[in-house]
Amino acid sequence: MHKIPVGVLGASGYAGRELCALIQRHPSLTLAFATANSQRGETVDLPLGGRVTFAATEDAALDKAALVFSALPHGASAEWVARARAAGVKVVDLSADHRIGNGASEGVPYGLTELRRDQVRGADCVANPGCYPTAILIGLLPLLERGLVLPGARIDVSAASGVTGAGLSPRLDLLYGEVTENFRAYGAGNSHRHLKEMRALVAELSVDADLQFTPHLLPIARGILATITVPLAASLPDPLAPWRERYRGERFVEVVEELPELRHVQHRNVVRVAVRMVEGVRAPALQVFSAIDNLMKGAAGQAMQNANLMLGLDEWVGLPA
Amino acid sequence: MHKIPVGVLGASGYAGRELCALIQRHPSLTLAFATANSQRGETVDLPLGGRVTFAATEDAALDKAALVFSALPHGASAEWVARARAAGVKVVDLSADHRIGNGASEGVPYGLTELRRDQVRGADCVANPGCYPTAILIGLLPLLERGLVLPGARIDVSAASGVTGAGLSPRLDLLYGEVTENFRAYGAGNSHRHLKEMRALVAELSVDADLQFTPHLLPIARGILATITVPLAASLPDPLAPWRERYRGERFVEVVEELPELRHVQHRNVVRVAVRMVEGVRAPALQVFSAIDNLMKGAAGQAMQNANLMLGLDEWVGLPA
Amino acid sequence: MHKIPVGVLGASGYAGRELCALIQRHPSLTLAFATANSQRGETVDLPLGGRVTFAATEDAALDKAALVFSALPHGASAEWVARARAAGVKVVDLSADHRIGNGASEGVPYGLTELRRDQVRGADCVANPGCYPTAILIGLLPLLERGLVLPGARIDVSAASGVTGAGLSPRLDLLYGEVTENFRAYGAGNSHRHLKEMRALVAELSVDADLQFTPHLLPIARGILATITVPLAASLPDPLAPWRERYRGERFVEVVEELPELRHVQHRNVVRVAVRMVEGVRAPALQVFSAIDNLMKGAAGQAMQNANLMLGLDEWVGLPA
Amino acid sequence: MHKIPVGVLGASGYAGRELCALIQRHPSLTLAFATANSQRGETVDLPLGGRVTFAATEDAALDKAALVFSALPHGASAEWVARARAAGVKVVDLSADHRIGNGASEGVPYGLTELRRDQVRGADCVANPGCYPTAILIGLLPLLERGLVLPGARIDVSAASGVTGAGLSPRLDLLYGEVTENFRAYGAGNSHRHLKEMRALVAELSVDADLQFTPHLLPIARGILATITVPLAASLPDPLAPWRERYRGERFVEVVEELPELRHVQHRNVVRVAVRMVEGVRAPALQVFSAIDNLMKGAAGQAMQNANLMLGLDEWVGLPA
Repeated sequence: MHKIPVGVLGASGYAGRELCALIQRHPSLTLAFATANSQRGETVDLPLGGRVTFAATEDAALDKAALVFSALPHGASAEWVARARAAGVKVVDLSADHRIGNGASEGVPYGLTELRRDQVRGADCVANPGCYPTAILIGLLPLLERGLVLPGARIDVSAASGVTGAGLSPRLDLLYGEVTENFRAYGAGNSHRHLKEMRALVAELSVDADLQFTPHLLPIARGILATITVPLAASLPDPLAPWRERYRGERFVEVVEELPELRHVQHRNVVRVAVRMVEGVRAPALQVFSAIDNLMKGAAGQAMQNANLMLGLDEWVGLPA
Repeated sequence: MHKIPVGVLGASGYAGRELCALIQRHPSLTLAFATANSQRGETVDLPLGGRVTFAATEDAALDKAALVFSALPHGASAEWVARARAAGVKVVDLSADHRIGNGASEGVPYGLTELRRDQVRGADCVANPGCYPTAILIGLLPLLERGLVLPGARIDVSAASGVTGAGLSPRLDLLYGEVTENFRAYGAGNSHRHLKEMRALVAELSVDADLQFTPHLLPIARGILATITVPLAASLPDPLAPWRERYRGERFVEVVEELPELRHVQHRNVVRVAVRMVEGVRAPALQVFSAIDNLMKGAAGQAMQNANLMLGLDEWVGLPA
Repeated sequence: MHKIPVGVLGASGYAGRELCALIQRHPSLTLAFATANSQRGETVDLPLGGRVTFAATEDAALDKAALVFSALPHGASAEWVARARAAGVKVVDLSADHRIGNGASEGVPYGLTELRRDQVRGADCVANPGCYPTAILIGLLPLLERGLVLPGARIDVSAASGVTGAGLSPRLDLLYGEVTENFRAYGAGNSHRHLKEMRALVAELSVDADLQFTPHLLPIARGILATITVPLAASLPDPLAPWRERYRGERFVEVVEELPELRHVQHRNVVRVAVRMVEGVRAPALQVFSAIDNLMKGAAGQAMQNANLMLGLDEWVGLPA
Repeated sequence: MHKIPVGVLGASGYAGRELCALIQRHPSLTLAFATANSQRGETVDLPLGGRVTFAATEDAALDKAALVFSALPHGASAEWVARARAAGVKVVDLSADHRIGNGASEGVPYGLTELRRDQVRGADCVANPGCYPTAILIGLLPLLERGLVLPGARIDVSAASGVTGAGLSPRLDLLYGEVTENFRAYGAGNSHRHLKEMRALVAELSVDADLQFTPHLLPIARGILATITVPLAASLPDPLAPWRERYRGERFVEVVEELPELRHVQHRNVVRVAVRMVEGVRAPALQVFSAIDNLMKGAAGQAMQNANLMLGLDEWVGLPA
């Protein structure tokens, strides 16, 4: 069978390597190139098997690929996305450069697949959502879309992520000796970017609510758990029903009774969601628990979901669910 | 120097061993006995050094001790506390059996030392607070006592604890293979007990507010971080001031600018607290971040703080801060 | 396509769940039953996705399966293996009950696939090797088979395993709080069984050498690394050559230059091997470094390798390499 | 009481911070300065409590200190040790610059305290041993000093260390995401330096034996466990006796029956040693298991032991055992 050639720019980080691994196992795709200036010429092991050798980004034969994933850093990605588009190549941009709230561009849909499937299908370029926003927005969509949030209320998000969410960069605060047996909230950099992204989407859906977001750093490699408290306009007799209905038939959203655990979503392209009514309080409120693998549904997996759609393939091909 | 004999009932669990270690290093105390029916006759290593041999609980010579710590399980503790009191021995009960909201008794103060110091000093028996309530209430007291919480509002607590908070019991879900690289919320057992304890105290302080509490299990041995969101009656120009003032001179409360990390409180009898105003929302709200070592300030350390007071010693003797 | 029904006895442990997951993803097999008396009726999540519901072992319809995997405990397995064989069903026994050195039976080959492939292919019952012996023997075979070990010498094995090697049992010493940030050698139970298994195989290959084995417990979930020191009859000019030659064409043995890491073999059915000559010593000696995932090549994966052969399928079908 | 002023050069690394913490808790010492060029002006939290602010190394008022600890990098330390000695200040050099096998200097004893106590007491400058050599040599001394090792034999050391042994430097391979759930041997840099140090000492003690050393990286913060196999000249009827006798009265060496665990030595200035005869082999051989905290007895703690002696204090003052 003829395989479709795709490339990865900025492939040496955690999301880039995960993409290379997905492509190597994909039945319909082949890896045309994987670039990483800082590690050009190096061959590395990929998660769950496979190896890849990095080329220099300048040497990427963009026009040899039908689609390019950009896992380049925020800021650096936009230029290469433009070059690829100029070469007539489709692009999934994993950086924040074209995301809603951070520099959205005309005709570049926000690739939260379960929300924007139709736009993604016809797009030449897609802005892949951030990891936290994916977990949180998939968790909130049934409430947001149905007008169940108390108008004017504040949605509170306390979320925790493994260290790969911060990327493969030599920061002292990400050393093993600093992270093991530790836990802390943090409040700068990525979290601001993700907050803007989420607030912009809430506004786009015309929901009259504030959003508060507190990320924490977990001593684990991969996974995000978001614990979201939402004041409701009214109590829900069957709290899980909105999620069951909204995500019926969705392969990559698991609506469950028991509270989700990170080990149940790691290495899988899924969001697992459960809800609980808050008990013993005056005004109705609900908690949503949403878990993802930040490198899969939070990055490379969702990027592949979008790429499959853009290339006319079945959305789920090559993705572990 | 003459040392005061004290005993530990139920000494084989995590809190019990921590108590034995504190007593062995205490300049004014000596360990009269340490009991543990399930491990009677066994000698074990203690945290940070030292060893102890357990006796059967029935063999405890209660009247040989000036004070007894009960680290027996909830339910089993009450009987032994009664026996010790009948023998004229002072008691610090680390179980929930005499705690506010769970069976408080006349004349048994709730040993949140920074709140009830005077009552503890004159008490024959003290109910040592739970680990989560200690972190959360110390974090909230400046708001609760000054009437800064928006009347009728809901205080949201998202907290995470290391596994020693669940005790040294052979549960499959606490095995290393089940906890490593995992994270999850949970909602039964201890968390219900702690919620009742906290709600009862909020009511006792006549604060008109609801309290919501969601505990999570961290892949670490020791430590609790509580992230608390509080709707305020009004914005605070200098948000940290109430904490600085309330805890001025307190040796075991660290009010800090930077967000607290668990590694900064482990093996220490302190609560470390920081606050942040929630930004970009309509109604004023504040976040409190409160970190403790669940076995120290959350259990054995605070028990020793209380015991020091009950025995007429300086509150801080023998405690690592 | 018609799928071959297979069953798993004792499916609730770590190896059993891994088997269920492999079977569910296998293109030619279907899971006829999975039994677990202690968790009968329960539905659990499997590694990397999938769910299974356990039946009682007594209710297993053995004759509905073409092949049965027994992951029952040592001692308990033999009886069920006999029952299954009496029912005309092929069996892969993951317990030690039929292993060389621990109760080998006539006509039950020792399923170290790369050593006994031909015997496995025609067998009705196979004794699946232990996890440590798999890592160590695959590492040693090229030296043992070619007579490169110094006659009369002592082979020293220092090996370390993640906690899943000890099984999913509620032991206090396997709790997260006891294993995290810890490391220790141990010397009873499984290690004796594995030592007998390895010594028996060394003897069967007519190698005149002693074998010493020291296992250690790692604070990780899965993986074994064996560091093996072997006195040689003579120095090796190209030390890696014997491994390259012995394992040419083997899909599940990776002979590499760089020292193996556990993260490169986790969730994969491979042995990764590297060697180094010991430098600065008088007598020639070599070190072999051998890494596996104890639940895959060390248990469920190798069991599937053997089952594939016994069922006339390609050895590598359904196995992640 | 008058306190003796001491300083720390290169205080921002793991060993340097541990030293600062020990000095702050020491009843007879006071911290005159702590320097760290890369973090000058910064204030950081210390292990188990306390805080320190770093000055620039150039600004260190060497002559204000009675003794200086140099925790500067290998290579950079020698110059500052010379400056301090020229200023008439005593020095404990934690770098390798003056260690046996790596550049030993006349009159600078090798500060393995239990071996060289008398020389340390009268020295102006002491070369503090490496972490691996401390664990291994304390484990081996009773055999080496009594001539119990088989002449011409090879001593095999398989050892594993936590990540703080590699220092607080921003290396990709030391990131949490690369170390968690991983284990690997490594063979360059520090391990070569430590091997030279150990071989030089074995030679100095006139022992006719080779030494082989294989270090591994553990997913833990602190601790070293060495598993050492030694061919013996003859079998030992009471294997532990040589250790009991050699270390009788030593406060910082724990000779025990049960196999040592890292959690039993962490945050303590001790070596814990146990031994086992190798069973089922022809020639008598013994295994020594030796555990330390690499930052305490393996670095800062032993440095303080030596400093206490050099300053005329009791060797054990201010040290947790």
